Amino acid sequence: MSKTDPGNFFEDFALGQEIRHATPRTVTAGDKALYTSLYGARFAVHTSDEFARTLGYPRAPLDDLLVFHVVFGKTVPDISRNAVANLGYAACVFGTPVYPGDTLSTTSSVIGLKETSNRKTGVVYVRSTGVNQRGETVLDYARWVMVNKRDPESPAPEPVVPDLPDSVPVEDLAAPAGPDFAKYEVGPAGSPHLWDDYAAGERIDHQDGMTIEEAEHQMATRLYNNTARVHFNQHVEKDGRFGRRIVYGGHVISIARALSFNGLANAFRVAAINGGTHSAPSFAGDTIYAWSEVLERTELPGRNDLGALRLRTVATKDRPGADFPYKDGAGKYDPAVVLDLDYTVLMPRRG
Amino acid sequence: MSKTDPGNFFEDFALGQEIRHATPRTVTAGDKALYTSLYGARFAVHTSDEFARTLGYPRAPLDDLLVFHVVFGKTVPDISRNAVANLGYAACVFGTPVYPGDTLSTTSSVIGLKETSNRKTGVVYVRSTGVNQRGETVLDYARWVMVNKRDPESPAPEPVVPDLPDSVPVEDLAAPAGPDFAKYEVGPAGSPHLWDDYAAGERIDHQDGMTIEEAEHQMATRLYNNTARVHFNQHVEKDGRFGRRIVYGGHVISIARALSFNGLANAFRVAAINGGTHSAPSFAGDTIYAWSEVLERTELPGRNDLGALRLRTVATKDRPGADFPYKDGAGKYDPAVVLDLDYTVLMPRRG
Amino acid sequence: MSKTDPGNFFEDFALGQEIRHATPRTVTAGDKALYTSLYGARFAVHTSDEFARTLGYPRAPLDDLLVFHVVFGKTVPDISRNAVANLGYAACVFGTPVYPGDTLSTTSSVIGLKETSNRKTGVVYVRSTGVNQRGETVLDYARWVMVNKRDPESPAPEPVVPDLPDSVPVEDLAAPAGPDFAKYEVGPAGSPHLWDDYAAGERIDHQDGMTIEEAEHQMATRLYNNTARVHFNQHVEKDGRFGRRIVYGGHVISIARALSFNGLANAFRVAAINGGTHSAPSFAGDTIYAWSEVLERTELPGRNDLGALRLRTVATKDRPGADFPYKDGAGKYDPAVVLDLDYTVLMPRRG
Repeated sequence: MSKTDPGNFFEDFALGQEIRHATPRTVTAGDKALYTSLYGARFAVHTSDEFARTLGYPRAPLDDLLVFHVVFGKTVPDISRNAVANLGYAACVFGTPVYPGDTLSTTSSVIGLKETSNRKTGVVYVRSTGVNQRGETVLDYARWVMVNKRDPESPAPEPVVPDLPDSVPVEDLAAPAGPDFAKYEVGPAGSPHLWDDYAAGERIDHQDGMTIEEAEHQMATRLYNNTARVHFNQHVEKDGRFGRRIVYGGHVISIARALSFNGLANAFRVAAINGGTHSAPSFAGDTIYAWSEVLERTELPGRNDLGALRLRTVATKDRPGADFPYKDGAGKYDPAVVLDLDYTVLMPRRG
Repeated sequence: MSKTDPGNFFEDFALGQEIRHATPRTVTAGDKALYTSLYGARFAVHTSDEFARTLGYPRAPLDDLLVFHVVFGKTVPDISRNAVANLGYAACVFGTPVYPGDTLSTTSSVIGLKETSNRKTGVVYVRSTGVNQRGETVLDYARWVMVNKRDPESPAPEPVVPDLPDSVPVEDLAAPAGPDFAKYEVGPAGSPHLWDDYAAGERIDHQDGMTIEEAEHQMATRLYNNTARVHFNQHVEKDGRFGRRIVYGGHVISIARALSFNGLANAFRVAAINGGTHSAPSFAGDTIYAWSEVLERTELPGRNDLGALRLRTVATKDRPGADFPYKDGAGKYDPAVVLDLDYTVLMPRRG
Repeated sequence: MSKTDPGNFFEDFALGQEIRHATPRTVTAGDKALYTSLYGARFAVHTSDEFARTLGYPRAPLDDLLVFHVVFGKTVPDISRNAVANLGYAACVFGTPVYPGDTLSTTSSVIGLKETSNRKTGVVYVRSTGVNQRGETVLDYARWVMVNKRDPESPAPEPVVPDLPDSVPVEDLAAPAGPDFAKYEVGPAGSPHLWDDYAAGERIDHQDGMTIEEAEHQMATRLYNNTARVHFNQHVEKDGRFGRRIVYGGHVISIARALSFNGLANAFRVAAINGGTHSAPSFAGDTIYAWSEVLERTELPGRNDLGALRLRTVATKDRPGADFPYKDGAGKYDPAVVLDLDYTVLMPRRG
């Protein structure tokens, strides 16, 4: 029996199958420092134990997207090692905050399967759940990927496509239960603009650009234990479709989120990802810019210290966001767009 | 009202203005490990908790320059986002040692303003103070930067230029109060040369060179939450004055300090920066060398276990320090010189 | 007296000489996170405090090779600063597990000396021992390096070549005394294959490749406080033998070990290095692949929860391991081979 794991092919997945992903991961202050050095993230709830304690946190929780990457990374060897394309995310809800010292592990269940018409590949829908060492859910999301078949002739399963919501309902968001954001100070947080100040339709150019280096995206992707081959192997990729290593899409999400501080400094918590599209690949040498649109401003049930903003953040490469590049009249993405992310953040509101 | 922060222009500063900079920062063992990986720093007081405890520290304090970068980084969004040039530092005194787990924040006061003769820019003088979570000063320094005016026609303020000392008087240095350096062991510290062995006028070539990579200076600068744009955006800088991203000057200071271990291994503490000049920009691909001159050897009031050395450390690029490249007869820097740093270190002395 | 340390030349070593290397080093969760980001290591005993506690460890110990690099790095300024070539390792035994917070220091004794026939260099044999803050041995190994003479005319010492074993006897391996590997769970560890499933002669292609970047190997090598010049100075190396910085051999060992997870996921502990050859230098841009052969499967005295596997892991550059490239008929290494490592791992066995 071969000792190496070739990863799963489309035929290896069955509806209802439960997968317990390997190598649980204790996250630490070391991961946090690397996350800072890779993106420059500086939302005050995450940068300062003292600031977090003032609100009622035991200490600063980790950035939500660092949690996302670690939980997601665990699924790669089983779900997407033989993936052709990462097609989408939905219903991604962040749960219990994660602190240095917590140990995260991930399980997935197969919630849909559909062979593609050419019979060479199939789409696998999974629901993945990340938990901490106490079994509390830290992240729960659906994802669908196109996976190669081992044999085009193998029979197709009954097609099942799960019904996934366009967005996470506000009732499903996990607003931190202990902390009291009436105590939130805008001075140290870096911006006077609170939830009350944003309006649906408002667009914000986050202004700065950040150039990606090979060493950076490789170090990030390995930190998350994400083993997808296209990110690390120039010897193979030089003869591949792009001639270069492809940057992990999550790396671009984190860059965009860090850039969004300038305009959204009080959006301290990513509460949900409603959907996301990596509309074009990114490579080392690309300079990433970002702009955001407020899609919706919503009250949170039972909370008058916090509100939710549904945002679209668009990342572009080698093109500033001043004129908000997005889609053309036919709905086709501007070639500079690399990410279209629909997500919901929490922000303190005025008393 | 725009949600993004354009940074301050010369007109936005007023004499006596107090600025409380945003995003306090908890520093950790993760930051320390990154600092080691970026510079290779190995002064024993900082590398070993056991060595530090033997002297009377509770554990190893962080490198002083890591503290400098974090405190400095906090000021960038308010002070130097629209800076044309970082003109100088003075009266920079390091205070209470900083340990992993401490939270640093920075305030600044405007101590001088002077419009430049072309009326397009002005020089802003600030005194910045970094404190820990107990309000103890960890760093205090004056800095002056040339900042763009929003409108060349706006009226000039009354010119005020603060009186800044050429050097920090030895009485103002904060020698660590608890630790007893009579217990300092030169063996594990890596050099037999103590304060008594150095003489004013002595020059030391630190021998090694270190080549800068883009990923390294970007990761360093983001780690410090320094948001100055010129360090990160190749898409803009390719059309800029140098065609390349500029390395944060503090990155070069830390490289020079790490190289200086070979010759100054017992200079465990940077107590003050008297003044500094970044005489030329540095870029990825440059190999940095360093040499030092002892400017002065001074006793410390009330201490016979420690003495002070005032040093000039000169960093060069792509040129070894063997012949001590510095200035020509007309006082102009050798083109290889990138840094001229006048600072004061503490070193154990013989019993 | 010169303040800088030129390193030792062949004449400076004497048989029986004891060297206490400088700058003890406290290792932390920060070092661990950097190790993960540099190699993607994910052996569950090291990635998860919870997994390690289930077995009886107080928390997750550090990767053995991280310990190796830190202990080894301490010896470089004294032993190999003027080395021409790193000739070999033998009898390398890993001892007490190392945890974040431990402080490591290294001593060496000179166990052999032999001038080379051209009289310009000599071979120095040392036994180096790394200990933690309680004086417990964490690593002990012999190493021999070719070192320049200061003066070719200086007299040769009596040649002494120590008798070094071809491999570490199984009785000398330090199997972790507290933990009980009957509790080891293969699910979270990532592979069903235990000690019982491997057979001498079995070959495993680890499949993936990883491309080295300059920033990565420099950050790794500085993290280990390894000061060998050839890794950091492009200004000198551009005119050197290869025109480029040479990657620290230990960086390649760690890449190969991380790649070997795919096929050896339960080989949680490197117990010994029997011998190793860096058969060709590696450079930034090289893509490293690895394959392994099981040389021997051995029971461990007094343990029925653990067994030992002696392995040969071969790393290649820019050539996949599918056809196991190694040596030609004349015993000459395939030009793609960069590392030939003979070592012993511990693996849980079936109850």
